[in-house]
Amino acid sequence: MKQTLEQQKSQQACEILKELNLDLWLIWVRETSEMADPVLKLVVGNDLVWQSALLYSKTGERVAIVGSLDAGGLEPLKLFDRVVPYTKTIREALRGELDHFQPKQVAIDWSRDNVSADGLTVGMRTLLDEYLSETPYPTRFVSADPLISRLRGRKTEEEVSRIQRAVDITQQILAEVASFVRVGQTETEIHQHIRERMRDLGVTDAWQASHNPAVDAGPNKPFGHAGPTGNRTKAGHLLHFDFGVRYQSYCADLQRMFFFGTPQAVPAEVQAAFTTVRDAIAAASEAIKPGVRGHEVDAVARTFVQEHGYEEYQHALGHQIGQSAHDGSTILGPLWDRYGSSPKGIVEAGNVFTLELHVPTKDHGQVSLEEDIVVTKTGCRFLSKRQTELTCIK
Amino acid sequence: MKQTLEQQKSQQACEILKELNLDLWLIWVRETSEMADPVLKLVVGNDLVWQSALLYSKTGERVAIVGSLDAGGLEPLKLFDRVVPYTKTIREALRGELDHFQPKQVAIDWSRDNVSADGLTVGMRTLLDEYLSETPYPTRFVSADPLISRLRGRKTEEEVSRIQRAVDITQQILAEVASFVRVGQTETEIHQHIRERMRDLGVTDAWQASHNPAVDAGPNKPFGHAGPTGNRTKAGHLLHFDFGVRYQSYCADLQRMFFFGTPQAVPAEVQAAFTTVRDAIAAASEAIKPGVRGHEVDAVARTFVQEHGYEEYQHALGHQIGQSAHDGSTILGPLWDRYGSSPKGIVEAGNVFTLELHVPTKDHGQVSLEEDIVVTKTGCRFLSKRQTELTCIK
Repeated sequence: MKQTLEQQKSQQACEILKELNLDLWLIWVRETSEMADPVLKLVVGNDLVWQSALLYSKTGERVAIVGSLDAGGLEPLKLFDRVVPYTKTIREALRGELDHFQPKQVAIDWSRDNVSADGLTVGMRTLLDEYLSETPYPTRFVSADPLISRLRGRKTEEEVSRIQRAVDITQQILAEVASFVRVGQTETEIHQHIRERMRDLGVTDAWQASHNPAVDAGPNKPFGHAGPTGNRTKAGHLLHFDFGVRYQSYCADLQRMFFFGTPQAVPAEVQAAFTTVRDAIAAASEAIKPGVRGHEVDAVARTFVQEHGYEEYQHALGHQIGQSAHDGSTILGPLWDRYGSSPKGIVEAGNVFTLELHVPTKDHGQVSLEEDIVVTKTGCRFLSKRQTELTCIK
Repeated sequence: MKQTLEQQKSQQACEILKELNLDLWLIWVRETSEMADPVLKLVVGNDLVWQSALLYSKTGERVAIVGSLDAGGLEPLKLFDRVVPYTKTIREALRGELDHFQPKQVAIDWSRDNVSADGLTVGMRTLLDEYLSETPYPTRFVSADPLISRLRGRKTEEEVSRIQRAVDITQQILAEVASFVRVGQTETEIHQHIRERMRDLGVTDAWQASHNPAVDAGPNKPFGHAGPTGNRTKAGHLLHFDFGVRYQSYCADLQRMFFFGTPQAVPAEVQAAFTTVRDAIAAASEAIKPGVRGHEVDAVARTFVQEHGYEEYQHALGHQIGQSAHDGSTILGPLWDRYGSSPKGIVEAGNVFTLELHVPTKDHGQVSLEEDIVVTKTGCRFLSKRQTELTCIK
């Protein structure tokens, strides 16, 4: 019988523990419908209500200690060798299972810089120390960041195929938009039209609905995470989309640029900006391969842009995508304080990244593109059909 | 102009700071689409991508320090007196604003027992200490739990009215179900039918779709969080629902019991169990009022059930509902380890609670009901139309 994605990822987790020579991984959560450790949806899927301890050993053994009302929902998923239910307190079962595994290190989900590996809250950390007082385990905690980064970053075939489908559907909708949009529409109208198409196609959002797609008409709106407004499309103006659908839990994330007018009417500064952005992405795609560091790939595009006379973009070139549009771990970004150590991460085969950047023009606003790629053994493959020319709308 | 719900709650937060004589509240988050401090949806709504500091003062002043790309989405919400954007690091702006407020205490979002007040992760806590090193502020941190508990628990009129609407729609669908269900259907069929009605009515889920509604046919299935199965309804058997829709972000949470047969055919032990559950809820509803402690209300129903010869239920009598089906803070529960201090909380006017419990029967499985109430100045008011008799399906 084919493994579920969660079974695949749970097994992969144990393999990575072995590779890292880490004895045990402890996911320690509660009330996950309220606030969930981001890794939970990768290896479990279901919500857990009471305090729950999920234990993954480098020997391959997996054990869940969960509230008695949660056990019935967890068992049918066949993710654990044993599901241990409790009623009044998890303390004894937790101590007992740790004694069973006798781990020299216990990886827990906290990270200074990687939000995807930082699922442990301060309150739950406090409880853990309390439940394990007078045992040796609190002194054996280490960060699960290296494990989670590899686990999330190394997409299985199934994961890449879901992302590919999300990218395909995102592109399909954007292609249709070219025949829908016309001069005089508001950003909000275009946004609503795209959302209707999403509903028709049965896909959900890669990020917050109110900003998906981001629709930016004309030169006077900073891109980023502003929602659509009453701004109207106009002849001679650009139209920008930042859009991604979610398909079977996996996300796409693309940016596309349209121009209202003939190809001949594209202003020279717009064409120059477009070419620079497109070619900076191409240059980065040629530089990325397993073994390089995130900031090295970012530097290729950043330098390219600056050498073409533009100021550097004020963000990272690329982030990973997966179950989240921002999937954590290694980013292709500059060594800025706000990115912490994530740009220092090493690119691996199976990683799926965005490549995105913008440059400003004097009179026409920003020109911004974003493509999605998967890292292969020797380089990368584009999941998106690259935008090579401005899409001109009559 | 009418305040938005987020504006109301932000203002309420400052008022509660004043009441508690707490100088400043700091919400400290990043990448909230990946993992969000649960309080964020109450006072902001929008996602924030970069490290963000939201500051609420007992003077009423509110300041947000956010990444430059987040500022554009936040400003139009008019939630803050100032939105301070940053590009490379939040460190200086954060220190500067703290120096501006000169707080003697800074409430941060961590709690041992209240998941809704435990939004700060271990990684973010680490970063905060690092950014504020050599300042006096890290020694001034206190838990925001007392603030958040009051803020979430004290529903505004607007919040109660949204919950009422969610309860009404949940009841409407359950009433329709009575004319849909018949002997021989599977739990899964009934589940799917209800989900279609949810789609028709444009409402979403109070909890995980796969378990909403929970549908339990016949005697052989433990209730709780198990999903619907191929179990079939049968004459002489019970049918149980645990169901809640979400309307404008606010949740309902109800349990209802159906019986396949005439009222005369209801087995005596089922009728006795139903009466006990119904009357235990009634007894608890008569005991709840502002000023009592959560565990005191639970004890009324728990004692009632035991005095009627049943074993005590292995969960809490009630939890708060709001933007989450489990809305955190004070619960109506026993003083068990796993509930921490939350049953010791004091019930306040404006709190919205579930009242729910089950008792077992020998041959017919469990009988379980759940109602929703709002605490008034002198007692409580039912938001749900109480189930007073088993709904008999021919």
